Amino acid sequence: MEEKILIFGHKNPDTDTICSSIVKQILSEKDGKTNVKAVRLGNVNKETQFALDYVGIDAPDLIEKVEEGQKVILVDHNEFNQSADGIENAKIIGVVDHHRICNFQTTDPLYYTAKPYGCTATILYQDFIAKGIEIEKKEAILMASAIISDTLLLKSPTTTKHDEKALGELGRIAEIDINKYGLELLKAGTDLDDFSEKELINMDAKKFETKGVKCVIAQVNTVSIPDVLKRKEKLEAEIKSAITESGLNLFVLAITDILNSNSQIIALGDRTDIIEKSVKLEDNMALLEGVVSRKKQLLPMVENNI
Amino acid sequence: MEEKILIFGHKNPDTDTICSSIVKQILSEKDGKTNVKAVRLGNVNKETQFALDYVGIDAPDLIEKVEEGQKVILVDHNEFNQSADGIENAKIIGVVDHHRICNFQTTDPLYYTAKPYGCTATILYQDFIAKGIEIEKKEAILMASAIISDTLLLKSPTTTKHDEKALGELGRIAEIDINKYGLELLKAGTDLDDFSEKELINMDAKKFETKGVKCVIAQVNTVSIPDVLKRKEKLEAEIKSAITESGLNLFVLAITDILNSNSQIIALGDRTDIIEKSVKLEDNMALLEGVVSRKKQLLPMVENNI
Repeated sequence: MEEKILIFGHKNPDTDTICSSIVKQILSEKDGKTNVKAVRLGNVNKETQFALDYVGIDAPDLIEKVEEGQKVILVDHNEFNQSADGIENAKIIGVVDHHRICNFQTTDPLYYTAKPYGCTATILYQDFIAKGIEIEKKEAILMASAIISDTLLLKSPTTTKHDEKALGELGRIAEIDINKYGLELLKAGTDLDDFSEKELINMDAKKFETKGVKCVIAQVNTVSIPDVLKRKEKLEAEIKSAITESGLNLFVLAITDILNSNSQIIALGDRTDIIEKSVKLEDNMALLEGVVSRKKQLLPMVENNI
Repeated sequence: MEEKILIFGHKNPDTDTICSSIVKQILSEKDGKTNVKAVRLGNVNKETQFALDYVGIDAPDLIEKVEEGQKVILVDHNEFNQSADGIENAKIIGVVDHHRICNFQTTDPLYYTAKPYGCTATILYQDFIAKGIEIEKKEAILMASAIISDTLLLKSPTTTKHDEKALGELGRIAEIDINKYGLELLKAGTDLDDFSEKELINMDAKKFETKGVKCVIAQVNTVSIPDVLKRKEKLEAEIKSAITESGLNLFVLAITDILNSNSQIIALGDRTDIIEKSVKLEDNMALLEGVVSRKKQLLPMVENNI
């Protein structure tokens, strides 16, 4: 049997990463390329599980690393530090992503499609249309779930008209009420009771380094910030451990209220002055009104202050 | 007036770089984005001039560098060391390319379309088709010229079925005999009499560094290798100057016979042992039969031996 091309998104997978991996496999197969297999690099969160349960499919298989020369297609990320261990020596034959390009290189020409949209699945939706490939209910719901998740039901400032259009069309194809389904999906993702504090600060954490300053910005979504803050002491203890273990200068945990579009941040480390250039921290915390997007709001705020 | 978005290809522009810049401007304008302007980073070579004269248009304006924050679209390259001076601080909003991705990064999400085809213009051709935008004679000839140039009339091993299909369709639209036009175009590019030896070794030179070894692979096309070798002594003197000036470890000049698909290489520097792992040099030279592509043949040979 010919070796499969593995399709995967980033570590700490979110709904876009998991759903876009699966949909990219479906799209490739419908396009005649059957030798592909979606996999994942970490646990499926509750929001994503809700979407998978809704369409009745299993999560992709978990992998730990990729072997040298393994053919791969990356979705929803490109930076090697967010990718599978061993990615430096894999053969990257394609990328579909909506992030900046950084910490990424190949030795050979490849397929790379990036668009500055709110969600990878929106790019995949356009690929279906451009190739004239039919979108069935299953993949429509998966792509809609990814867009709802990444754009917080089109409320995030990362949302583009392309995401709006795609979500509308996908809702029609899936025959679902997008607002009703979307709120259920997002709420499913905010059930944090089963997670330890360590899991909470790692479930959607992006690490980066700018001008020698090592940062992590983590995010959890909730419908009640006070509920999460009941665990503040333990969360801070875990953040401090992470800082020590990884030699970080700054760890920002954003607790995002998806109904009211605000984020409470907890910032720790020896470079919290970076945050305080924008907002005063009290008791290591600040409320950022209207801030829901790490990529468009938190990351630029931190990077511009370094 | 709103600031124009500049579209340009790599330094030492070739026919794909110049024609794809112009065609990307035409495509953008036909797609309703009129605020774009093709420019170039260096002199137009004789092959490219032949194509421009054939359609009766001027070369894009020459620029020396880009200012901080300048919005740009890159075609036919992505590596910063092949791009405009100042590119690190420009705002890259799009890339259309057919090379590996390397020495490239952005701070923001962007449009990036790469496909492992023989020519950038083939990707642009597909963009016209996907967007349902009419291809007129002028842009058909420009794209055909780029494909003929990059694939040496579909003979180079970089050629894909996509390039073949595009060139066939473009020939029909342009109402030209592709083989007849193609040979005229390629021959126009092999008239090297007007160029100094220094110009010859720089006209299509790609610089790169692997494992600390600094290399240049330059290429000139000809219909008579012996004609070019009449200037061997002066060519070697210029190569030696380039090595000293830029602290290079290896300079390979490939003199490519486009009719018979062979390349005579001249290799100089303190690391010619890299070349000699593949082929014995005599009098600093070797004939590589069937070798016409820097990207697919020469570059891998050199990199794999480092």
